[in-house]
Amino acid sequence: MEPHGVLVVTCPDRPGIVAAIAGFLAERGANIVEAEQHSERSSSTFFFRVEFEPGGIPRAALQREFAPIAKRFAMTWRLRFTDQPKRMAIFVSKYDHCLLDLLWRQRAGEIRAEVPLVISNHPDLRSVVEGFGIRFEHVPITPETKPDQERRELAMLEECAIDFVVLARYMQVLSPVLLAGFPLRVINVHHGLLPSFAGARPYDQARERGVKVIGATAHYATEVLDDGPIIAQDVVAASHRDSVADLVRKGRDVERIVLARAVRAHAEDRVFVDGRRTVVFA
Amino acid sequence: MEPHGVLVVTCPDRPGIVAAIAGFLAERGANIVEAEQHSERSSSTFFFRVEFEPGGIPRAALQREFAPIAKRFAMTWRLRFTDQPKRMAIFVSKYDHCLLDLLWRQRAGEIRAEVPLVISNHPDLRSVVEGFGIRFEHVPITPETKPDQERRELAMLEECAIDFVVLARYMQVLSPVLLAGFPLRVINVHHGLLPSFAGARPYDQARERGVKVIGATAHYATEVLDDGPIIAQDVVAASHRDSVADLVRKGRDVERIVLARAVRAHAEDRVFVDGRRTVVFA
Amino acid sequence: MEPHGVLVVTCPDRPGIVAAIAGFLAERGANIVEAEQHSERSSSTFFFRVEFEPGGIPRAALQREFAPIAKRFAMTWRLRFTDQPKRMAIFVSKYDHCLLDLLWRQRAGEIRAEVPLVISNHPDLRSVVEGFGIRFEHVPITPETKPDQERRELAMLEECAIDFVVLARYMQVLSPVLLAGFPLRVINVHHGLLPSFAGARPYDQARERGVKVIGATAHYATEVLDDGPIIAQDVVAASHRDSVADLVRKGRDVERIVLARAVRAHAEDRVFVDGRRTVVFA
Amino acid sequence: MEPHGVLVVTCPDRPGIVAAIAGFLAERGANIVEAEQHSERSSSTFFFRVEFEPGGIPRAALQREFAPIAKRFAMTWRLRFTDQPKRMAIFVSKYDHCLLDLLWRQRAGEIRAEVPLVISNHPDLRSVVEGFGIRFEHVPITPETKPDQERRELAMLEECAIDFVVLARYMQVLSPVLLAGFPLRVINVHHGLLPSFAGARPYDQARERGVKVIGATAHYATEVLDDGPIIAQDVVAASHRDSVADLVRKGRDVERIVLARAVRAHAEDRVFVDGRRTVVFA
Repeated sequence: MEPHGVLVVTCPDRPGIVAAIAGFLAERGANIVEAEQHSERSSSTFFFRVEFEPGGIPRAALQREFAPIAKRFAMTWRLRFTDQPKRMAIFVSKYDHCLLDLLWRQRAGEIRAEVPLVISNHPDLRSVVEGFGIRFEHVPITPETKPDQERRELAMLEECAIDFVVLARYMQVLSPVLLAGFPLRVINVHHGLLPSFAGARPYDQARERGVKVIGATAHYATEVLDDGPIIAQDVVAASHRDSVADLVRKGRDVERIVLARAVRAHAEDRVFVDGRRTVVFA
Repeated sequence: MEPHGVLVVTCPDRPGIVAAIAGFLAERGANIVEAEQHSERSSSTFFFRVEFEPGGIPRAALQREFAPIAKRFAMTWRLRFTDQPKRMAIFVSKYDHCLLDLLWRQRAGEIRAEVPLVISNHPDLRSVVEGFGIRFEHVPITPETKPDQERRELAMLEECAIDFVVLARYMQVLSPVLLAGFPLRVINVHHGLLPSFAGARPYDQARERGVKVIGATAHYATEVLDDGPIIAQDVVAASHRDSVADLVRKGRDVERIVLARAVRAHAEDRVFVDGRRTVVFA
Repeated sequence: MEPHGVLVVTCPDRPGIVAAIAGFLAERGANIVEAEQHSERSSSTFFFRVEFEPGGIPRAALQREFAPIAKRFAMTWRLRFTDQPKRMAIFVSKYDHCLLDLLWRQRAGEIRAEVPLVISNHPDLRSVVEGFGIRFEHVPITPETKPDQERRELAMLEECAIDFVVLARYMQVLSPVLLAGFPLRVINVHHGLLPSFAGARPYDQARERGVKVIGATAHYATEVLDDGPIIAQDVVAASHRDSVADLVRKGRDVERIVLARAVRAHAEDRVFVDGRRTVVFA
Repeated sequence: MEPHGVLVVTCPDRPGIVAAIAGFLAERGANIVEAEQHSERSSSTFFFRVEFEPGGIPRAALQREFAPIAKRFAMTWRLRFTDQPKRMAIFVSKYDHCLLDLLWRQRAGEIRAEVPLVISNHPDLRSVVEGFGIRFEHVPITPETKPDQERRELAMLEECAIDFVVLARYMQVLSPVLLAGFPLRVINVHHGLLPSFAGARPYDQARERGVKVIGATAHYATEVLDDGPIIAQDVVAASHRDSVADLVRKGRDVERIVLARAVRAHAEDRVFVDGRRTVVFA
């Protein structure tokens, strides 16, 4: 099967954008396979993602010839091809459920990204990761060593040509320096239904408050803890019978599903950030 | 607010369709507010719905000038405007929950359709219906009177310029004659998760089989009972504790939600039939 | 069918409680139809609800003879019979969806309570309420008149022998005086998934924060706004496509279902308060 | 922590059962930690599960002294202790998602059972299984070798003192001989929402029928394919956009969750079979 082109566009909303893009593709004989759009009224912004069969048009020509259209509509845009999957690094501590789930889904083809690197502040999961044939780096962090170690991490990420980072229950707060290297390209999973129960021990907070629904949130990490744009959330029912340990167990299933959904969407360029919100195409 | 245009299109899938439609609208200064598309590979069919601000273009001109494009792509198409809501009739027997829910949602503006007529084979719900200011017709049905009574019903539907019919737990099977008058425009709600538990007494069947999930199905009625294209389905958990009466009670909530979802989508031209399946745009 | 007895018990957890209660009932020939229990470790408290066929034992004898057992285990307890349904009052403002839903469910037998009184700070819903044959009292509230008007309300509640109050989207905060008259017997529905989005305009808050799940919460009202023990919560998925108006529409379905679930459980003595949490038996 | 006793009882429903059991435990100083009961009216059968802290009573005494009570009420019963986990074997073919999920949950303590043996008709998953330190047996099956090979399997199951068998997407139908060795102790997962889409290729069936909800079912295997008592079911929404491959992907998540829920419940003696139905305590 011919690789698809994936064009994503963000620009001020105004008439004629779809016509311009669809016309551009049609004139060149490309066939639209899938397209989704959103006009956000609150910010007068237009979001568009189109996936197409290029029909033999040279990629460089597409890139070059689309530029004038992009300029006319003041677009932020990106054109990629499905045979050039993104490269993701996973940061993990000791919990293995999200890590294993991502690695399993990646191997099963559910997540269209390569995983050349896993970094952990603990050595425990080395054999698991290496069992998948993936490089594992143990980078312990203390308050004193954090700046140096994050510089090391940045170097590794660069060396592996990483496009985005997934914090799979990584129990460290990333510093602004590391985040600045991957702006809105670090995906975190929080084991609470944000904005509820931000911060530490969300399941304890949930039990104490007596909620009847718990959840998990996958979001882009920003400098403010558990505050970045939300990509995916889901829930599971809770009851008086659930101890904190039960909530932890139930929550693991939701964490895995929510994180996988976010990573899958990000890898396929289906997520757009619009201020504090995201647009996520199905 | 200016009424929107809603153009729906079904045609053989091939390159250039979106470009043609979007170009047509852009050239006339119309602004696309919402668009959704689907390329069905199994039937090589393209489905498209676009909602737009006409920007002052005369409606007749739009209709006339789109025709050549439609012809070029062999489109089945329809162009409507949001100030011309569809007209729906509701058929009901004695259960009032779906009827009341539809009438309440219509009054609250959730369902963008007019309801000029309710027909019932029982007189019980007359005062409820008339309390909403809606004409209620009692049309009792026996095996002997059915052909004549359905002719009466067809006449009433025509008289009220009805676009589509909703069977809100109507306990009669419509004859082919009545269905032929409204092909794929009769929406039924079945209180089982089709294809499970078609036919009579689905909650009894569900309890007997010991399922842990029950559901309801809204679908277009066809000549084969409970077999038409499914528009919406949803479920609720069941357990050993649920008697048939409990399932009936739980099921009512799902029936209401599923039927309302289907009627709302149909009223807004968001449902396309593709053989035994439907395409339902969000 | 013989009315059932419903015995609810809260006491310090220790061995022998179930044996004592079950023995008490068995010795008198009563037949347990349904029983549920919970041992809360965090507070060392035992919660028990048993529903039984009394088998002809005089009710006064049951009450009198159970007292020594209750004393032995330091129980808080209550014995009721299903032919003595609780009496509920509904407070409402202008939104009718929760009100109508409760009245419809009560009439359909889903909520086993009587509704002799509806109070509103607006006159709009009088005809709807009176259409159900229920007394409607319009009690307008201003900051100046609030104390006097709440005294009037308390008098009406007493006059109608009301057991518990349901705030069905009542847009007024009850004063401590009114709450003190019905401690943990005022059920409120909040249109947010508490503790998220407490206070005013939760759907606006939800859209602004960009959550992917919205919900509703039924809880006992306490002096702190939106802070009382939660009885029921549920959610619905949200997306970037949902305007605030869409969230309001989607939320109405959840509000209705969550409030009905809480009221139904409270009416059947299935809810126990344990500090900030509730125990809710199925 | 002292291991708990778990007593499960099925018997004809009549007054005094709970009193007898609770009295028996209380007299010996045992403390009930958790109890759940169900009176099934359709079959006049009583189901009871109680978990208790034995408080030092010798196990043999409990077994011996409970026998007369069991006899009096014609009980089918079993008393186990939580330090004697059941032993489960997993049968698998080539799909690894359910297998991996079960092994991961077992290792994480979610499933309280030992897994001494995995049998497969394909060699592919040997290294995965052995990586968990579990014996893997490759037992290829052809129509000709099936009787002999199943005898080998039965011998292995006996040798490993297996209590119950889990078919984790095992693509072979077990013969009556093998099933007879583990009556109602073989748990299968079917990738359809039974009774919908029994038999082969349920996701293809689901796409063809155009359902809007797909699901999975964990059930006890019986001699009739996909017909045994259902233990757990769950669903996920489907749409026109989902190809069969998408349904397969979405379905995997449901299969895993449903099978894990059933296995967890069975391992903890929370499942009772009542004809074609199950009683599953939370």
